[in-house]
Amino acid sequence: MEFIKGSCESFVEVLASKAPVPGGGGASALVGAIGTALGNMVGSLTVGKKKYAAVEQDILALKEKADALQGELLALVARDAEVFEPLSKAYGLPKDTPEEQAEKTRVMEEALKAACQVPMEIMRACCRAIELHEEFAKKGAAIAISDVGCGVACCRAALMGASLNVFINTKSMTDRIYAEKANAEAHGMMDKYVPLADRIFEDVAARF
Amino acid sequence: MEFIKGSCESFVEVLASKAPVPGGGGASALVGAIGTALGNMVGSLTVGKKKYAAVEQDILALKEKADALQGELLALVARDAEVFEPLSKAYGLPKDTPEEQAEKTRVMEEALKAACQVPMEIMRACCRAIELHEEFAKKGAAIAISDVGCGVACCRAALMGASLNVFINTKSMTDRIYAEKANAEAHGMMDKYVPLADRIFEDVAARF
Repeated sequence: MEFIKGSCESFVEVLASKAPVPGGGGASALVGAIGTALGNMVGSLTVGKKKYAAVEQDILALKEKADALQGELLALVARDAEVFEPLSKAYGLPKDTPEEQAEKTRVMEEALKAACQVPMEIMRACCRAIELHEEFAKKGAAIAISDVGCGVACCRAALMGASLNVFINTKSMTDRIYAEKANAEAHGMMDKYVPLADRIFEDVAARF
Repeated sequence: MEFIKGSCESFVEVLASKAPVPGGGGASALVGAIGTALGNMVGSLTVGKKKYAAVEQDILALKEKADALQGELLALVARDAEVFEPLSKAYGLPKDTPEEQAEKTRVMEEALKAACQVPMEIMRACCRAIELHEEFAKKGAAIAISDVGCGVACCRAALMGASLNVFINTKSMTDRIYAEKANAEAHGMMDKYVPLADRIFEDVAARF
């Protein structure tokens, strides 16, 4: 399941196939990692430049956070595939008797909750990545600023893509309290961070 | 320069570094390919299903187009790196004499035009990918429809990210007629396809 160790080309190829994983969750995590790396790159191009000596320590701290987020998001590509397998198996359980039906419901519910947690973590990581882009846009080297715009656009896409993978899982849950709490958290992140990402992008675009 | 042959993990790592390539253009092309593959995957999960037999031929035709676009976008990752090198060299040319200045302007202009063409091609490919997602959303298997939403969000990000790489190059061109023509084409694509991508995403999200 270590898709990130395989080539970019083969990731795209397997993604396009009917193989159960990777899917939208894993793809969102990878796109989030790519977006985070673009902000991080602007940091890398800023460090060591005389012109930006005053913000060097800030940039180094931002880069450390970006490195950690990139690693988290790359790890979530594999995590998303891991939680999909039990869910996929649960869908196939028999439900011919009331006992089987009850057992299937129980197993499904557990698998849905696990499968919902990963895109939620992808969303949380993308929110933090968008916050980092806000800082990179302010303090990063002007020559590479377009890459902050590209990066934040990718993080926005990853946030939105992952949200659909939260909603597709909460929709089938019988525990509606858990489901609605998860939906509220996901909607809260979208409501705050999609407009923030748009603002960062527009600020960058306005420089050209 | 064959970044797509390397691992996803190393692409993200090199992207985050101060290495001149890949940059925002190449990352946008890869994210566009990932987005296209997500739509394509929904097609793969639709083909061969009795329930969708009526649209099987349409889906096969869409998948063929998606395969071609994925390949184009993956090839554009390398193309973007190829055109960046001469531009990077041109920036370093001396301009101490009027002759050197004139030569630098000439070489820069040529390199800027080449460097602008690649993100423009990425944008054109993303527009076609967004059109494919519109069809996949209508005809694809309902069970995988969230992936159309993820895919179109990625193609939108790639389109917007690539546009910044058009604008950063046109900004420095002395041939303003060429530059304004390129800007107009890029703005035209954004004006039409960003709202279309949003509409497709919203239609998918409304199903949950």
